[in-house]
Amino acid sequence: MGRVHTPHGSFDTPAFMPVATAGAMKGITPKQVRGTGSQIILNNAYHLLLRPGPERMARFGGSHRFMRWEGPILTDSGGYQAFSMAQIRDLNEDGVTFRSFIDGSRVHLGPESSIGIQQAIGSDIMMAFDDCPPARGELDASEYRRRVIAANDRTARWLARCIAAHRHADRQGLFGIVQGGTEPDLRRASVDAVCAHDLPGFAIGGVAVGEGPQAIHDTVRMTAPMLPADRPRYLMGVGYERDIWAAVQAGVDMFDCVLPTRNGRNGFVFTPAGPIRLRNARFADDQDPIDPGCDCEACGGGFSRGYLRHLFMADEMLGPTLASIHNIRHFQRFMADMRRALSDNLPTSFERRWPVAVQEAPPDRDDAEVTIP
Amino acid sequence: MGRVHTPHGSFDTPAFMPVATAGAMKGITPKQVRGTGSQIILNNAYHLLLRPGPERMARFGGSHRFMRWEGPILTDSGGYQAFSMAQIRDLNEDGVTFRSFIDGSRVHLGPESSIGIQQAIGSDIMMAFDDCPPARGELDASEYRRRVIAANDRTARWLARCIAAHRHADRQGLFGIVQGGTEPDLRRASVDAVCAHDLPGFAIGGVAVGEGPQAIHDTVRMTAPMLPADRPRYLMGVGYERDIWAAVQAGVDMFDCVLPTRNGRNGFVFTPAGPIRLRNARFADDQDPIDPGCDCEACGGGFSRGYLRHLFMADEMLGPTLASIHNIRHFQRFMADMRRALSDNLPTSFERRWPVAVQEAPPDRDDAEVTIP
Repeated sequence: MGRVHTPHGSFDTPAFMPVATAGAMKGITPKQVRGTGSQIILNNAYHLLLRPGPERMARFGGSHRFMRWEGPILTDSGGYQAFSMAQIRDLNEDGVTFRSFIDGSRVHLGPESSIGIQQAIGSDIMMAFDDCPPARGELDASEYRRRVIAANDRTARWLARCIAAHRHADRQGLFGIVQGGTEPDLRRASVDAVCAHDLPGFAIGGVAVGEGPQAIHDTVRMTAPMLPADRPRYLMGVGYERDIWAAVQAGVDMFDCVLPTRNGRNGFVFTPAGPIRLRNARFADDQDPIDPGCDCEACGGGFSRGYLRHLFMADEMLGPTLASIHNIRHFQRFMADMRRALSDNLPTSFERRWPVAVQEAPPDRDDAEVTIP
Repeated sequence: MGRVHTPHGSFDTPAFMPVATAGAMKGITPKQVRGTGSQIILNNAYHLLLRPGPERMARFGGSHRFMRWEGPILTDSGGYQAFSMAQIRDLNEDGVTFRSFIDGSRVHLGPESSIGIQQAIGSDIMMAFDDCPPARGELDASEYRRRVIAANDRTARWLARCIAAHRHADRQGLFGIVQGGTEPDLRRASVDAVCAHDLPGFAIGGVAVGEGPQAIHDTVRMTAPMLPADRPRYLMGVGYERDIWAAVQAGVDMFDCVLPTRNGRNGFVFTPAGPIRLRNARFADDQDPIDPGCDCEACGGGFSRGYLRHLFMADEMLGPTLASIHNIRHFQRFMADMRRALSDNLPTSFERRWPVAVQEAPPDRDDAEVTIP
């Protein structure tokens, strides 16, 4: 446990950061986000680069003023989205050139322009622009190692360029990202290269890119302890409660994930006993809240499962809003209770209160359905 | 000015009621609705009849408990939607049979079943099931009169059946609805028939059904003074600020309209100087709020026109939510200032503060575009 201080306030670790992709938490006001207990949120540099763009973002004085979020903000580098989502035109040592999904224009993103948009956003924590190799897939062992080594090397060169381009080290912290795939010696090599720089925090990248859950946990357990103990350790894009709890036990401090909001928008809500689908007909006459133990605006406000189901069946925007608020609050209650349990050295009682933390897999897990936008 | 007391609290008149069609104000929590200064809201019986249906609504204890709105609720009879929106199968003295837009099933709505769903909803004010004739259109004068007379007669017969079916007169007030088209003598005849019943309030129906703005105002000015002065007078489904102000001057006390929420969802927001379209490129770098004089969650919260435009361009749900909250608050500030001006007998200074109240037509009016769901 710990506490991280930023120019826009502090946050407790282990921390969960909900994702305000394009400068807004979908359907939720900043006041409602604060009401969930969230202390820090994430913006996506890729989305804000394309719209409203760095010049406009700078004119508005950055994301804090633009979206009216007064607390800490972390930005990713935009690289992951540019590599995975966009129609790539060119990828080389200078970065990636792709087509904007908004107007089809050619957009370049590399170490310098990633730092540029993140400086315009004015995030408290910026992420280095890195080269994230996909999972091993069909490659043989030596081909996979060659590709991971190349990504390690490029990540190290790009990190040096990010640091050189970073003009606001006094008010924006830059985190390095460690690659290395599932190979222990390559993880070690990347840690040595990345952590050679005196940066305020480090992230474990290249995880949950297609490898299985056991490989994810093995990689996190192997890598987290290699990172400096006196700097925040951030596991990007993870995940379900059990993934977070396993990573915290390995020494990770920070998490972000779109699960609470994306799943909430689809009527998939989290409870200490596991997730439920509000559209299910069995909730039609259910007058209980999603989780009687929850104090969120939905549960504490007395909105029943039956009413929330009605909202989803009727395509009422209020359903996604209330379910997202509940889900973020669920994750924040999970993290707050975890911080208390770790502080009291009572992890077993924590696991009794949150059986989802030790489940092999969420009982109702169905990514294919719940990740539809 | 006045004050209307109901089993769920009181509201000041002239009152504006925002519309929670299917048991939810689209994208806005009840707490946020209260924050706009709204004292009473409207539910649509037609939508709640089809989903969740009267049995389920009754099991949840009515709409106040279902949607968690503690203040007064008014329900329309459902007739207008059934006549105008649904695929009608049969229309006769017993009411209308139509196809449900949800599952295609045959649904009947008549005086008794309209009272039935409104009793299940548990609204504080129920509306009589009436026969609303369309505008004159291409009909010659005598044909039009014959049709209006037939609607008057049926409205009177249906009102008697509504009163007979009404079991909860102690806790739900039933308002009669006056028809009569644009014909002064037929308005008088309908007033005589409807107001012969000792009901707690009366509405002017059959207005804004396709006739021009001048005919609307003439009909309201003619009809409102015919209604009992000691009962609330309600003009259904109206309207823009100038329509409300003209009707208040004619003696109307209550209004409902989907304009604030429907237009808000499309980025069309109201200001004292007239409406503006937030998607317009001229707002891209505008750091001012929608209306510097407004204290709503959007304006008072410091969200700029430029940020709101960004939300609409990015299809972020938060845009419709904030714009709808602003629009409802705009209408409630308009009504509150009107009540003060009337109380102080200073209508001219009110019109100086709200030039939209005396405009011939909203400068940026474009119903075809802004009424898309």
